Amino acid sequence: MERKQIDPEEREGQIEGRNAVMEAIRAGWTLDKVYIAKGDTDKGLARLAAAARAAGAVVVETDRRKLDTLSLTKSHQGIIAMAAAAPYYRVKDLLKRAEEKGEPPLLVACDGIEDPQNLGAIIRTAEAAGAHGVIIPKRRSVGLTATVGKASAGAMMHLPVARVSNLTAALRELKKEGLWVYGTAADSPLSLYQVDWNGPAVLVIGSEGKGMSRLVGETCDQTVHIPMKGAVSSLNASAAAAVLLYEVVRQRGKSNMQAE
Amino acid sequence: MERKQIDPEEREGQIEGRNAVMEAIRAGWTLDKVYIAKGDTDKGLARLAAAARAAGAVVVETDRRKLDTLSLTKSHQGIIAMAAAAPYYRVKDLLKRAEEKGEPPLLVACDGIEDPQNLGAIIRTAEAAGAHGVIIPKRRSVGLTATVGKASAGAMMHLPVARVSNLTAALRELKKEGLWVYGTAADSPLSLYQVDWNGPAVLVIGSEGKGMSRLVGETCDQTVHIPMKGAVSSLNASAAAAVLLYEVVRQRGKSNMQAE
Repeated sequence: MERKQIDPEEREGQIEGRNAVMEAIRAGWTLDKVYIAKGDTDKGLARLAAAARAAGAVVVETDRRKLDTLSLTKSHQGIIAMAAAAPYYRVKDLLKRAEEKGEPPLLVACDGIEDPQNLGAIIRTAEAAGAHGVIIPKRRSVGLTATVGKASAGAMMHLPVARVSNLTAALRELKKEGLWVYGTAADSPLSLYQVDWNGPAVLVIGSEGKGMSRLVGETCDQTVHIPMKGAVSSLNASAAAAVLLYEVVRQRGKSNMQAE
Repeated sequence: MERKQIDPEEREGQIEGRNAVMEAIRAGWTLDKVYIAKGDTDKGLARLAAAARAAGAVVVETDRRKLDTLSLTKSHQGIIAMAAAAPYYRVKDLLKRAEEKGEPPLLVACDGIEDPQNLGAIIRTAEAAGAHGVIIPKRRSVGLTATVGKASAGAMMHLPVARVSNLTAALRELKKEGLWVYGTAADSPLSLYQVDWNGPAVLVIGSEGKGMSRLVGETCDQTVHIPMKGAVSSLNASAAAAVLLYEVVRQRGKSNMQAE
């Protein structure tokens, strides 16, 4: 689960060494990822890893050579943390936001979006469409990095993003809260235009290339297809999100007009 | 008008030296850009520049130092051409495509999209939505480069793209052909959901940041806004294109069902 490459912009939030990382955790900084030397069994590092995990960070065991390459200070002491560019929220904060606005919840769950441009664009469109938050998994997903923030055109500062250990479990919890979980599937007989989007909803956006994972797909209450009129078989993840989100905007706008 | 940076992937289509460029033109290759030494007045280069322009390429006068930096062979002889990754079509080819399909024309005009990821995503969504082609201007726009092709997920091979010297003039021609030119404007009183999209239409997508140019904006028959429910004031260009194109898909799909 090591990142192949780290964007230079991300390096601004890079924190190296045991004291620096511990201070960042104590000060309540949101850590996106913590790279920790593999096989190193000393107690100090193990304690730091536990503290980082407790604070919500993804801890990645990394071999020392990779740490040496990553290190800017060349004295990482076996640990390098990447600060997130925005705090992570809990899923219930997202629901609370909907409640405060008196609107049926509208959430977007990103199932394994690894491209920061795509995640940023999805956050931007979700914010513009009036969604109440975005959910991303801890693994197989880019976090709230500086590049995602830039691609979101600032929307990341306005829309809460929750990061969960298990996306399927989070979706099941949301179902208990009365939300319907919608996914996209090319072979679904139902088009997105045949669905009533006025109720509480989570839109699951599958990853570029692989789509939704099997478990997440099985958790959906309903799948819909986006009509494909040409030779290509899918839209990119952020375009699919835009089409889905704005069909919700269209339908909810219409209902509001009728209600007035 | 020099490109700040050239993506390494683009360099595959790089053709250097007078004979090589002349042969590429003679063989009918589509050239995206031709960089030619500035101030060099010899007849050979001038003739090459004229031939490249006649073949539809954008000719950019560049100082010799820039050419030296660009050069892979280190013997560019004052000229370096970049081959396009797909051929350019004429606007009338796009209209013909609609006619052959027996559909009201649906075109997308990109007003100064310089980001290859955005142009690629727009081409992909336009192809998926059943549009008949995309129009880009020669200047202030990325061309059909390898990166655009990759971002389009192959859609560039299926959807014709026309490149025009003057976008405003091209839109005026399309108006004479009976198409309505639609642009987006945040302050338009009409939302995209209040427009009947069943007629022949060109959707103008403004550039990231700057939006539509003044002249292009004045050429529009109608502007619409995309509802913005949050703090951010706009969608990115490819998300805006997706929302507009799929509202057309929705409405035209509905009319087809009613007609059957």
